[in-house]
Amino acid sequence: MTTGDEIVDATFTALYEHGYADLTMAAIGEEFDKSTSLIHYHFDSKEDLLATCLETILDDFLDDLEDDPDADPADRLLRLAELVVGGTGDNGVDEFHTALLELRAQAPYDEALREQLARNDAVWREHIADIVRDGIEQGRFREVDPEHFAALFRSAIEGAQSHNVILGEDAPCEEAIAGIEELLIRELLVEDERTGDAAA
Amino acid sequence: MTTGDEIVDATFTALYEHGYADLTMAAIGEEFDKSTSLIHYHFDSKEDLLATCLETILDDFLDDLEDDPDADPADRLLRLAELVVGGTGDNGVDEFHTALLELRAQAPYDEALREQLARNDAVWREHIADIVRDGIEQGRFREVDPEHFAALFRSAIEGAQSHNVILGEDAPCEEAIAGIEELLIRELLVEDERTGDAAA
Repeated sequence: MTTGDEIVDATFTALYEHGYADLTMAAIGEEFDKSTSLIHYHFDSKEDLLATCLETILDDFLDDLEDDPDADPADRLLRLAELVVGGTGDNGVDEFHTALLELRAQAPYDEALREQLARNDAVWREHIADIVRDGIEQGRFREVDPEHFAALFRSAIEGAQSHNVILGEDAPCEEAIAGIEELLIRELLVEDERTGDAAA
Repeated sequence: MTTGDEIVDATFTALYEHGYADLTMAAIGEEFDKSTSLIHYHFDSKEDLLATCLETILDDFLDDLEDDPDADPADRLLRLAELVVGGTGDNGVDEFHTALLELRAQAPYDEALREQLARNDAVWREHIADIVRDGIEQGRFREVDPEHFAALFRSAIEGAQSHNVILGEDAPCEEAIAGIEELLIRELLVEDERTGDAAA
């Protein structure tokens, strides 16, 4: 793990522990195993650090996804949805999503955060639209508007992630995932493929 | 407007102005035209007040919606989506949605908030599922699972609302609304109704 990645990890842990209002460089330093001076060496300000965090987590997510462009496009969408909504299932992910939700809620008050979130969102929507284009090209998906699907799909899976973080066991995310699979992904399939399971 | 409603309004204005971390009873009192003692008379604590706020806004929303059970079910879903995602279009709504997003992000740290949001979410999902059941009964919608659709639909429209608040003009909500109309609502229609516009 690079020093930069370690700083990002420390920042998200501190954000979860202290909340955004009390997120100081000192609080981040406490979660960081090396010298706090390294944080100041790498980042000019908390805003700069948070924007970099958001960039890093998107890059890491897309790397970890190991998205195989030759895999079935319906499988690729379902895997994406499951990872975004439920995470990998260990506790660390819920803390991470909780911290991420708090960062998002601060964006209307912080231009640097907002700009980075907008850049992430554009990359993210393009990634989804590309999967849809692949599916259409391969003749597996119907001719839908890839941008409209991408905007809807990212709102649905990020919305479900928020519901998972906010409501916990009172609103099991299984129903949202089932809806995403049955009513968004399966409906993309061309008519004669729609009888089987979407991602079987 | 009742005193209770005025207190709720003052709370949301104060929340938008000060942020959750600095939301004190005194700050709420400053946005309230009558005596602050009335707030203390009506509510035991800030947590109690915020939970009531969330309950009130859901009730008000469902009232304002003037949802007509005899109207076309696809129209009802589209109207719901447009109101939740974009609000009524005046600036007040963006401030309200911004404050609401911040409240939601605090729920993992505040059990009373979380419980009220979970109650709201259950009412909300049931309202959507009922529209789907009506549509199926009337023979307009296909036989989908109403609970799965409701879980997906509420995540999609609340997710799009958050994207609208967070990203502003960098991510026009028109694409998400178009996706919701074309790919969620229209797909509900039985085959022989699907050629026209979903909600025409």
